[in-house]
Amino acid sequence: MKRVYSFNPGPATLPLEVLKEAQAEFLNFADSGMSIIEISHRSKPYEKVHNQTKADILELMGLGEDYEVLFIQGGASLQFSMIPMNFATEKNPGSYAISGTFSNNAYKEAKILGVGKIAASTESENFRRVPRQDELKIDSDSAYFHVCYNNTIYGTEYHYIPETGNVPLFADMSSDMLSRPIDFKKFSLIYAGVQKNLGPAGVVVVVAKKSLIEKSLETLPTMLRYDTFYKKNSLYNTPPAFSIYMVGKVAAWIKNNGGLEEMAKRNSAKAKILYDVIDESDEFYKGHAEKDSRSFMNVTFRLPSEELEKKFVAEALEKDLSGVKGHRSVGGMRASIYNAMPIEGVEALADFMKSFKKNNC
Amino acid sequence: MKRVYSFNPGPATLPLEVLKEAQAEFLNFADSGMSIIEISHRSKPYEKVHNQTKADILELMGLGEDYEVLFIQGGASLQFSMIPMNFATEKNPGSYAISGTFSNNAYKEAKILGVGKIAASTESENFRRVPRQDELKIDSDSAYFHVCYNNTIYGTEYHYIPETGNVPLFADMSSDMLSRPIDFKKFSLIYAGVQKNLGPAGVVVVVAKKSLIEKSLETLPTMLRYDTFYKKNSLYNTPPAFSIYMVGKVAAWIKNNGGLEEMAKRNSAKAKILYDVIDESDEFYKGHAEKDSRSFMNVTFRLPSEELEKKFVAEALEKDLSGVKGHRSVGGMRASIYNAMPIEGVEALADFMKSFKKNNC
Repeated sequence: MKRVYSFNPGPATLPLEVLKEAQAEFLNFADSGMSIIEISHRSKPYEKVHNQTKADILELMGLGEDYEVLFIQGGASLQFSMIPMNFATEKNPGSYAISGTFSNNAYKEAKILGVGKIAASTESENFRRVPRQDELKIDSDSAYFHVCYNNTIYGTEYHYIPETGNVPLFADMSSDMLSRPIDFKKFSLIYAGVQKNLGPAGVVVVVAKKSLIEKSLETLPTMLRYDTFYKKNSLYNTPPAFSIYMVGKVAAWIKNNGGLEEMAKRNSAKAKILYDVIDESDEFYKGHAEKDSRSFMNVTFRLPSEELEKKFVAEALEKDLSGVKGHRSVGGMRASIYNAMPIEGVEALADFMKSFKKNNC
Repeated sequence: MKRVYSFNPGPATLPLEVLKEAQAEFLNFADSGMSIIEISHRSKPYEKVHNQTKADILELMGLGEDYEVLFIQGGASLQFSMIPMNFATEKNPGSYAISGTFSNNAYKEAKILGVGKIAASTESENFRRVPRQDELKIDSDSAYFHVCYNNTIYGTEYHYIPETGNVPLFADMSSDMLSRPIDFKKFSLIYAGVQKNLGPAGVVVVVAKKSLIEKSLETLPTMLRYDTFYKKNSLYNTPPAFSIYMVGKVAAWIKNNGGLEEMAKRNSAKAKILYDVIDESDEFYKGHAEKDSRSFMNVTFRLPSEELEKKFVAEALEKDLSGVKGHRSVGGMRASIYNAMPIEGVEALADFMKSFKKNNC
């Protein structure tokens, strides 16, 4: 069976064991005589998956009873709107750190509603780094302060937790949730479109303080109120059951593989391999991100010319190294190396980078 | 391998051939070396699936270039809000026929926004039938007239297309889309949460006149504007790729099995078997729906006592006839017999009903 190493930013590679497990039980889930995609979301076997997935996520994050896990559709892009709709007002706007495309998109949705403010931006530096603590201008009347913790497109990541005073800290962790231990208790709301590190596209995992989401504005549409999901255990209507089931399998896989400590160890080892190749290439490869903002998840770099970049993509693909082309806003290359990318894949890419350099220098 | 006949209302049974095909290629989709749930939504193999699914749906419905297929997350429940947000105003409200739980939920979302009106309701008759044409009070200044074409919970279905004058006709067809030929050209917007007749939960198929959705209000959140999905081919953000892929396989299966004409033939034959058992049972089984509103998709009936109903559910399950318990708002039994339910399953249920009656009469 053909399998490639996929460095796509998302949807992204998933653990092969997890895929095989899902495949094996695809026609008969939990001895129900039905597929997981046929079984009722009100049935005991499904509910067990649903609740275990929630519990495993909280356990992995080291969070307790004061946090709730919600499963919401629409992608992180819908969260960009739900967050200001639920929490921000003109008087108490949301405050945004702009560190790339998605944090900017989040801010734009608050702006459409007239309830967004910019606390910091590194756009003038083409988002080569995330804002520093001393650059954050967070008004104390902000409803929340919002960051995008890992910037998939630019290959940058926060390596500190912003101090926000009394302002609740919200984070889009779509591309690094469950990739390393973070003091998640410092956050009031964390969300992730799962298709990078956690499962198949189709669900967003929202982890929020219960006190924040137990009561929403009654003037909001039902499906845009966080309390609808909270009060109904994310079962107000039919949930995206297959995506949740796969997230559950991935969460179990993380637990069985040493949890977030071990993920962090593996991920930083993988990132180091690629950054070392870049740093030791005599500027044949040039990293996009500044060193102290480098992402463990998305390694972005350029080559000496666009022609060489095209050649790099084509030759990589011949070696079954897929999806290394960067986003058009940065150009060049991007290797996404989430939890499920094995070190062998990263080593294969590093070897290819070295020999490509030798052949084209 | 254990397989049961599932009469669940949704998520519901899917064609076994389709499930087997998806299982076989689960680790290596289209020779990409990736699973369909890992592959980029910007890749050629995925785009082919995406566009073919759209084309097949239009072809099956007999619709042309003036209609567009959109894939939107959030379930029909989010459509209940998106529709009034996009189309209704206080001056031109949405007009609703209330024929059951979901049409009422749709109306309620318009009401939250202050833009909903009731055109007819059969609530006082416990929704045993859909409203008749002569009962529909559709103001000519309505932004649209909304019906729920098949009422899953009550087991009723429209057997006529409402005449609405100049008012655009909108229909929630979550539980009967692609189950039979309908003159879909009379509708301006049709939508279906796919987890009944079309695929796994996680996507809503919206089929709308292009003229209706080409420009949305700029004050709306991006993910709640129909034009976002229209202009970006439902790829503004990562779509729920697996659900769409399965819908595509189901649409192809319908085409390969004779299209909507053949589906209608099979579905009415299946429904007849069960309604005949009910009608010939000397009132041991009592249908909930009035005869001229009977659904081809969901057959609802009661037994002489709640005790017998419990026994019926338990004994049916022993015979691998699963999911026959009715919704709490109607009580009794409900057999959902969508496209993918084979006639053998319906015959097995009919045989069981006859022998259960004999043993408990």
